[in-house]
Amino acid sequence: MAFVGAGPGDPELLTLRAMRLIGAAEVLLHDQLVPQEILDLASESATLVPVGKKGFGPSMKQDAINALIIGHARGGARVVRLKSGDPGVFGRLDEETEALDAAGIPYHVTPGLTAATAAAASLGVSMTRRGRNSDLRLLTGHDVRGFAEQDWRTLARPGAVAAIYMGKRAARFLQGRLMMHGADPMTPVTVVENASRADERQLPATLATLAATLEAAQLDGPAVLLLGLAPQAARAAAIARQEVS
Amino acid sequence: MAFVGAGPGDPELLTLRAMRLIGAAEVLLHDQLVPQEILDLASESATLVPVGKKGFGPSMKQDAINALIIGHARGGARVVRLKSGDPGVFGRLDEETEALDAAGIPYHVTPGLTAATAAAASLGVSMTRRGRNSDLRLLTGHDVRGFAEQDWRTLARPGAVAAIYMGKRAARFLQGRLMMHGADPMTPVTVVENASRADERQLPATLATLAATLEAAQLDGPAVLLLGLAPQAARAAAIARQEVS
Ligand SMILES: C[S@@+](CC[C@H](N)C(=O)[O-])C[C@H]1O[C@@H](n2cnc3c(N)ncnc32)[C@H](O)[C@@H]1O
Ligand SMILES: C[S@@+](CC[C@H](N)C(=O)[O-])C[C@H]1O[C@@H](n2cnc3c(N)ncnc32)[C@H](O)[C@@H]1O
Repeated sequence: MAFVGAGPGDPELLTLRAMRLIGAAEVLLHDQLVPQEILDLASESATLVPVGKKGFGPSMKQDAINALIIGHARGGARVVRLKSGDPGVFGRLDEETEALDAAGIPYHVTPGLTAATAAAASLGVSMTRRGRNSDLRLLTGHDVRGFAEQDWRTLARPGAVAAIYMGKRAARFLQGRLMMHGADPMTPVTVVENASRADERQLPATLATLAATLEAAQLDGPAVLLLGLAPQAARAAAIARQEVS
Repeated sequence: MAFVGAGPGDPELLTLRAMRLIGAAEVLLHDQLVPQEILDLASESATLVPVGKKGFGPSMKQDAINALIIGHARGGARVVRLKSGDPGVFGRLDEETEALDAAGIPYHVTPGLTAATAAAASLGVSMTRRGRNSDLRLLTGHDVRGFAEQDWRTLARPGAVAAIYMGKRAARFLQGRLMMHGADPMTPVTVVENASRADERQLPATLATLAATLEAAQLDGPAVLLLGLAPQAARAAAIARQEVS
C-alpha cells in the first residue's frame, strides 16, 4: 500500500506521483486536513474514508486507523493513506508503518510538500540564508506531554529560523520561553494560515506581538508560525525605508 | 518571473505547478543539479541556461546569475529560475530575490520537495516521532566560514534527528564534534545519495562508521546525511531480532 503526501492544500502543489496514486486508489484513507479539491481527484468508484484529526476536535484513535489500513490492504484493495503535507513531518507515519510491519504488509512512501516550505514560498523568502542561519528547524508546539519544550537557548539567538507546527495555542508559551532565554522582542514571527490555499492569510508579527496578533485574528484553519522570517513585501519596504534614511 | 523548486530529481516528484511553469518558460535558468529528464519538459523553443554550482567544481558567481535573471526578465521573456529541491532551503534564494527587489522586478516562489523529506521517504521512515523528537533540523555541512558549527550539544542527544545537506566532506568533522559532545557512537546515520533518482543509493551507517562508510562508497552524486534515522528495512529487521531474542 502507499503512504502519500498531499502537500499543504493547493491541488497544484501535489506531486505528479501523488496525483497518479490518488487517481488509481481503490480505497483512500485521508486526514481531515486534506481539502475536498484533492479528494475530488480520486476515481468515482473509490471508497473515501476520513480518518485522523482536525485541530483539537474529536479524532479517530491511532489503533483504529491502523486497523482500517490493514483491513483494506488485506482485502486486496489498492489502498492509499493520504496525509497532509509530508507524511514524515509531524504525521505519525511511524505509528502506521510499524503496524504494517507487524502485519507483514509492504508499503512505500511518497513525500509531499510540508507546510513550512510552502508558507515560506508564499512569503517569497528563503528559510536559510548565508551568514544568518546554517540550520533550520521544524518544531511542534505540542507533544505528548503538552506544550513542547525545545532548545530555547539556540532558538532565541539572532538569526534563528524555525517553523512551528501546531503552534497556535502555544503562542504565549513560545513567546514567554523565547524572551526568557534572551530573544529580541522585535524578532519577526509570521503566522501563515491555510498556506497555499485560496483563503491563505499572512499575519506578520514580532515575538512581542505574536500572542495578541493570534488572538485578534481568530484563526480557524491550520497555521504555521515562522520564527525569524518576515514577508518579502515587508522586508522590501524595510529596505526601501533604510535607503531613504 | 518565477522561482521554481524542481524537487530532488525524479520528474514524478515535481509539483503540477512546477511542471506547468517549466513548460511555459521562454528562458529557463537552472542549477546543475536539475537532471536532464526535467529539463526535457521545457518547450522546444525555450532557451536553457545552466547556472549555479555543482559540488565543489567551478561555478558561476552569484552576481553573474543575478544579472542574467534580471537581463532576461527586463527583456520581457517568461523567465523561470529552476532550483533543485526547494528554492528556500540552502538555495541562496534571498540573494537572487534581493537583486530583483533592487531592480524592481516582481517574482513569486513555487516551493519544491527538499532533499531531506525525499530521502526519508525513500527509507520508508518518519522524520519526527512522538516521544522521540519534537524538532527536526535541516543543517548545512558547510557555510561561508568552512565546516559549519552547530548546536552540537542538543544534536548529540538521544533521539535527535537532523538532515545534513552538503555534508559529504564534513563527515569526519561532524563525527568528531558529535562524539565530543557525548553522542552515542551507535547512533544511526543513513547517507542517501541521489535520493529519488534511478541511481539512488542508501548507505546505512552509525556515527562511528560514517566517515569510513563514505570513503569506501566514493559517492559522486549529491547526498544527504540523515542523523538519527535508519532505513525501514533495517529497523524492521532489528525489531524482528528483538522479537526473536
Ligand atoms: C498534524 S500536523 C501535519 C503536518 C504535515 N504532515 C506537513 O508536513 O505539513 C498539522 C499542522 O501542520 C500545519 N499545517 C498543515 N497544513 C497547513 C497549511 N496549509 N498552512 C499552514 N499550516 C499547515 C499546521 O501547523 C497544523 O497544525
Ligand atoms: C545547494 S544544496 C540545494 C538543496 C535544495 N535546495 C533542496 O532543497 O534539496 C545541495 C545539496 O542538497 C542535497 N541534495 C540535493 N539533491 C539531492 C538528492 N537528490 N539526493 C540527496 N541529496 C540531495 C545535497 O546535500 C547537496 O549537497
